[in-house]
Amino acid sequence: MAKEKKLVEAITSMDEDFAQWYTDVVKKAELIDYTSVKGCMAIKPAGYAIWENIQHELDRRFKETGVQNVYMPMLIPESLLQKEKDHVEGFAPEVAWVTHGGLEPLQERMCVRPTSETLFCDFYSRDIHSYRDLPKVYNQWCSVMRWEKTTRPFLRSREFLWQEGHTAHATAEEAEARTIQMLNVYADFCEEVLAIPVVKGRKTDKEKFAGAEATYTIESLMHDGKALQSGTSHNFGDGFAKAYDIQFTDRDNKLKYVHQTSWGMTTRMIGAIIMVHGDNSGLVLPPRIAPVQVDIIPIQQKKAGILEKAAEVEATLKAAGLRVKTDDTDRSPGWKFSEQEMRGIPVRVEMGPKDIEAGQAVVVRRDTREKITVAIDELAAELPKILDSMQKDMLERARKHRDAHTYVAHNMEELKDIADNKPGFIKAMWCGERECEDKLKEDAGITSRCMPFEQETISDVCVCCGKPAKKMVYWGKAY
Amino acid sequence: MAKEKKLVEAITSMDEDFAQWYTDVVKKAELIDYTSVKGCMAIKPAGYAIWENIQHELDRRFKETGVQNVYMPMLIPESLLQKEKDHVEGFAPEVAWVTHGGLEPLQERMCVRPTSETLFCDFYSRDIHSYRDLPKVYNQWCSVMRWEKTTRPFLRSREFLWQEGHTAHATAEEAEARTIQMLNVYADFCEEVLAIPVVKGRKTDKEKFAGAEATYTIESLMHDGKALQSGTSHNFGDGFAKAYDIQFTDRDNKLKYVHQTSWGMTTRMIGAIIMVHGDNSGLVLPPRIAPVQVDIIPIQQKKAGILEKAAEVEATLKAAGLRVKTDDTDRSPGWKFSEQEMRGIPVRVEMGPKDIEAGQAVVVRRDTREKITVAIDELAAELPKILDSMQKDMLERARKHRDAHTYVAHNMEELKDIADNKPGFIKAMWCGERECEDKLKEDAGITSRCMPFEQETISDVCVCCGKPAKKMVYWGKAY
Repeated sequence: MAKEKKLVEAITSMDEDFAQWYTDVVKKAELIDYTSVKGCMAIKPAGYAIWENIQHELDRRFKETGVQNVYMPMLIPESLLQKEKDHVEGFAPEVAWVTHGGLEPLQERMCVRPTSETLFCDFYSRDIHSYRDLPKVYNQWCSVMRWEKTTRPFLRSREFLWQEGHTAHATAEEAEARTIQMLNVYADFCEEVLAIPVVKGRKTDKEKFAGAEATYTIESLMHDGKALQSGTSHNFGDGFAKAYDIQFTDRDNKLKYVHQTSWGMTTRMIGAIIMVHGDNSGLVLPPRIAPVQVDIIPIQQKKAGILEKAAEVEATLKAAGLRVKTDDTDRSPGWKFSEQEMRGIPVRVEMGPKDIEAGQAVVVRRDTREKITVAIDELAAELPKILDSMQKDMLERARKHRDAHTYVAHNMEELKDIADNKPGFIKAMWCGERECEDKLKEDAGITSRCMPFEQETISDVCVCCGKPAKKMVYWGKAY
Repeated sequence: MAKEKKLVEAITSMDEDFAQWYTDVVKKAELIDYTSVKGCMAIKPAGYAIWENIQHELDRRFKETGVQNVYMPMLIPESLLQKEKDHVEGFAPEVAWVTHGGLEPLQERMCVRPTSETLFCDFYSRDIHSYRDLPKVYNQWCSVMRWEKTTRPFLRSREFLWQEGHTAHATAEEAEARTIQMLNVYADFCEEVLAIPVVKGRKTDKEKFAGAEATYTIESLMHDGKALQSGTSHNFGDGFAKAYDIQFTDRDNKLKYVHQTSWGMTTRMIGAIIMVHGDNSGLVLPPRIAPVQVDIIPIQQKKAGILEKAAEVEATLKAAGLRVKTDDTDRSPGWKFSEQEMRGIPVRVEMGPKDIEAGQAVVVRRDTREKITVAIDELAAELPKILDSMQKDMLERARKHRDAHTYVAHNMEELKDIADNKPGFIKAMWCGERECEDKLKEDAGITSRCMPFEQETISDVCVCCGKPAKKMVYWGKAY
């Protein structure tokens, strides 16, 4: 009993201290461990299995749109990084520099990639000659490094895992279409698989990617009312092509610059899953992304026939395509329940002697704790339905939470009041000037999250300066 | 016609200059491109797709044995690298050093991982407490960096992709069993999937991994008679555990050191596929690893109904689980044949108006160029058989080549003659002394490849010094 209490008590309540709750869940659900390498984490099996499922689902969706995977070097020579002015300004202050190879100093230092636009550009400048070579729709799965000062597991670490797509096109229209297409892939993935609703929109110039003409983003809202940038897709126009001299001979026999895009999603989405769906008992994983969907927990397992029946059920459920494990360790059922809840396994199936005698089992949903008695013979048919309902309900619940924490501000007074007292998204009009954006950051501590594709007219004037408004913007505090 | 000739002529004959032939194939089959980062390559879609298939197959086999995937940091603080004396001596001369993070010099420099024993040990020292925490059977897929002076695509590059498994066990016996188990996984994978026969054995102390108690290896023979170390599995005993203080409380309540293993396979296996199976027309991919297995090439495709029929066949074959593409570009059939051969696609299906009228197609095997006329309705049933035969024949052919290039030396005269004139494996007896190993390297330019598990007695005395022999050893020149 002491151990059971310890497991549950060890989590800080999310309402008391959300940041500590997050750290507790990340550790207690065994997603990561800290390392001797400051700012870098070790991703443990339970965490990495979630990333593998994210990879698998995203990669499949990418390939359906014609994406091909490649691999570029992890180091960038300094001279290569410096060719695009905005890009180097954005990234140079936060890269790790390799200065020695073996026992020798390098002639030119190289940075560990913080992102690979420069390497793909270098590659494309050699690989693209004719319109026949276009489009190039490449992606790589890799790790990148940004020398952050303050770090948090999954959300901001010096090294993180991601995919970065880099494409080259013959026309500006095609590049723009690909940029939006990939943003939609991300948005659909988040909603359908992670059960996280997102707002799609465009970043302001202040918030866009270093070197991009336009950055599109999907923004999600965490349980504590802070926003999380969840995936971005950039249209570079021909800016990089000019800096890296990527030209092709078009059908009309003229030499032209390509138009490029890039887009990425990272391990921070594991942080999003935790902060959107988790509760005071730990992690809650959406069934579609959960490495284990069903945890069979035998009750009084030492009695004859119990473990055999559990094994039989496990085999049946696996054959039905479910991801299942049986907890047959020698700990108490209560301890096992707590652990299943901490790890966020979507449902547990409780099976004791009386249940088995009655030919039934008790299914408990992780999100609602609803108990559903199901005939053992029906488990393979019923569990997929229960998991589907849970997946839908989780998205719906997250959407309701997001909508309930999305506020409208008509003027600065309203805006500051919301920013101070009501964590969430703030919808407010904007004149388009950087000055007002800076002022909202200074006075209310919020940043522009995006100019949503779905515009609304809240008023005719900028919430800040009162001049005519150009865009409705989502504002908020963000991770 | 000029273009067609160019494609074929561009490859150097393998008998004329094997190294140049290799480079030509790697480039012309579009597996890699060189980059601005010296010693690092860009892996292009055709190359990366092979790696994805290797990953998929190996990962599946790993997981069947209970392996779990994780991810450790890519940087190793210098003090962490230095804890195991042999290990640091082996790797320190060839690592890349990060000395600055952003604009600041680091307090302690860190190297980009050349391998991750030190990081896993650091992790295990915090994560393992009790016998209940054992075994740990972890693996990661990542890139590593070794500052090589001379590099060759896939075979030796400063950065390469691999998987590295790292395990911790309660007993020496369990660690040894896991070491051998993973070697067998590699051997089976090479033979069953890559159609590459291997010799399994143990490395001599001179050739073993820095810090290992025992290194086991699978060695394969390339077409030019040089050996390639294709996968290694190391038993560390408790050496690393003592250096990194990884102890656990055993069932008997005593504090003990864990026993560890590590094992890895890399992108160099793509080089092995090229050098074992390739020919003067380019790459030849074993069907089980080929990203595209069937290339449908329509003849006179502008005639009505040809492309439609090709599309219909493609759909049928895909539904049957084959990996298929149709080459409907506007180039000549001859050009398409050359390209299919260069890229090593296992079979092509030629379909012209007369064939279609007769309800048949011509299947051409890439390895033998055998032409097989097959009824179009039978393609989905016949192609898997043809691909299976090709897979078997490729392994058999490689085995015959290997056996025909495996020689026996009873004395130094024979050994030197073989080393000078007959590229291949040399089987010869060895006394077990480092001195003789060094002398064979000096006098005959060969190294010990392994002490095979299947021992034979060629003579009673060492081929070099004439003292009593302890082991029969495979020797050879190696990549």
